[in-house]
Amino acid sequence: MPYVNIKITREGATPEQKAELISGVTRLLQDVLGKNPQTTVVVIDEIDTDNWGIGGESVTVRRKRGQ
Amino acid sequence: MPYVNIKITREGATPEQKAELISGVTRLLQDVLGKNPQTTVVVIDEIDTDNWGIGGESVTVRRKRGQ
Amino acid sequence: MPYVNIKITREGATPEQKAELISGVTRLLQDVLGKNPQTTVVVIDEIDTDNWGIGGESVTVRRKRGQ
Amino acid sequence: MPYVNIKITREGATPEQKAELISGVTRLLQDVLGKNPQTTVVVIDEIDTDNWGIGGESVTVRRKRGQ
Amino acid sequence: MPYVNIKITREGATPEQKAELISGVTRLLQDVLGKNPQTTVVVIDEIDTDNWGIGGESVTVRRKRGQ
Amino acid sequence: MPYVNIKITREGATPEQKAELISGVTRLLQDVLGKNPQTTVVVIDEIDTDNWGIGGESVTVRRKRGQ
Repeated sequence: MPYVNIKITREGATPEQKAELISGVTRLLQDVLGKNPQTTVVVIDEIDTDNWGIGGESVTVRRKRGQ
Repeated sequence: MPYVNIKITREGATPEQKAELISGVTRLLQDVLGKNPQTTVVVIDEIDTDNWGIGGESVTVRRKRGQ
Repeated sequence: MPYVNIKITREGATPEQKAELISGVTRLLQDVLGKNPQTTVVVIDEIDTDNWGIGGESVTVRRKRGQ
Repeated sequence: MPYVNIKITREGATPEQKAELISGVTRLLQDVLGKNPQTTVVVIDEIDTDNWGIGGESVTVRRKRGQ
Repeated sequence: MPYVNIKITREGATPEQKAELISGVTRLLQDVLGKNPQTTVVVIDEIDTDNWGIGGESVTVRRKRGQ
Repeated sequence: MPYVNIKITREGATPEQKAELISGVTRLLQDVLGKNPQTTVVVIDEIDTDNWGIGGESVTVRRKRGQ
C-alpha cells in the first residue's frame, strides 16, 4: 500500500528506464518492509529544467555552465 | 483552507469531469468538517501511463494486457 | 488507481470524520471517472496551525484574532 | 537540504521569473534558518487552469467571469 | 538531484529499515539513470492508519478485519 | 492562489521562524508574479532526521559524523 513519488528532471528518461524505477522501488519496499507489491503505487514526475532549482539557480543555467 | 491534490492517469478526463471533481471534493470538506469552500484549493495532476506504476509495472504495460 | 492527498489543519478531526472523507472522495472518483475504488488511495495530512500559512501569516495567528 | 515545491497556475511565468522564485526562496531559507543554499532544492509545478480549483470551481471558469 | 517521497503507514518501521530504503532508492536512481547520489534527496512520511485509506475505508478498519 | 510546500528537518524551528518563512514566500510570489497574498497557501512539513536522506544516508547518521 505504499505510495512513492519520484521527481527527476525531464532529460530523456525512456519508458524502459521508468519501468525499471517502478519495478525496483516496488521490490525494495517488499524486501525491506514486506509491503505487498500489488498495492504499491509509484508516480514519476519529470520536471522541466527551468522549473528545478538547486544551489539557488535553475538546472537550465547550471547545464549551460556544464554542471 | 484545505488543500487537496488528486492524481489520476492522463486518459482523457474532460474539463467538465475535472470541474465535478473540484466541486465534489470541496463540498465534501464542507459537509464533513465545516471547511469554508471559498478557501479550499484543489489541484489535479494527470500523469502519463508510462509514469504511473502499480504492482511493480507501468499502467502502459497493464493496459496492453487489457487490465 | 487514483491517489488523493488531503491536507487540513490539525484541529480535532475525528477518526469517523476522516473515514467519511476517505469513503466520500473514493466514491466521487468512481462516480465521475469510473475509477476502481479498490485501488484508490487516500492520504490525510493534519498540519499544525503554526505550520499552515494563508494571507502571509500562520493559522495560529489568525485564530487568535478570531478568524 | 530543504525541499520546496511551488505550485502556480500555468499562465505565462517566464524562465527569468521562475529563476527569481528559485533564488528568492533559497535565500529566504538561508536567512531565516541558516540552511545551506547549495543543497536547497526547489521544484515549480505549473498547473493548467482547468486542473486548479478554488471556491469549488476551476480557475478557467473564474477567469471567464473576470476573477 | 532527484527527489523521492515514500509514504508508508506508521506501523513500526525501524531507523535501520528506513536507512535501507534511503540507500536502496538512491542506488536505484544511480544505477538506472546515472543520477548523482550526493544530491539525491529522500523523504519518508509515516502516516497514521486512521489517515490512510484504500478501497474506501481506513487502514485502521481494515486491520481490525485482519487485512 | 499559489500553494507552497516547504519541507525541512525537524530541528527546532520556532513559531517565529516559521512565520517568517510564511510571510517571506508569500511576499516573494506577490513581488515576482503579482500573486494575491490573501489566497497564497504555505504548508511547512518538519521531517524527523531518521526520515530524511541525502547522499544515500539519513540526516541522523550525517549529524553523528558532524555534517
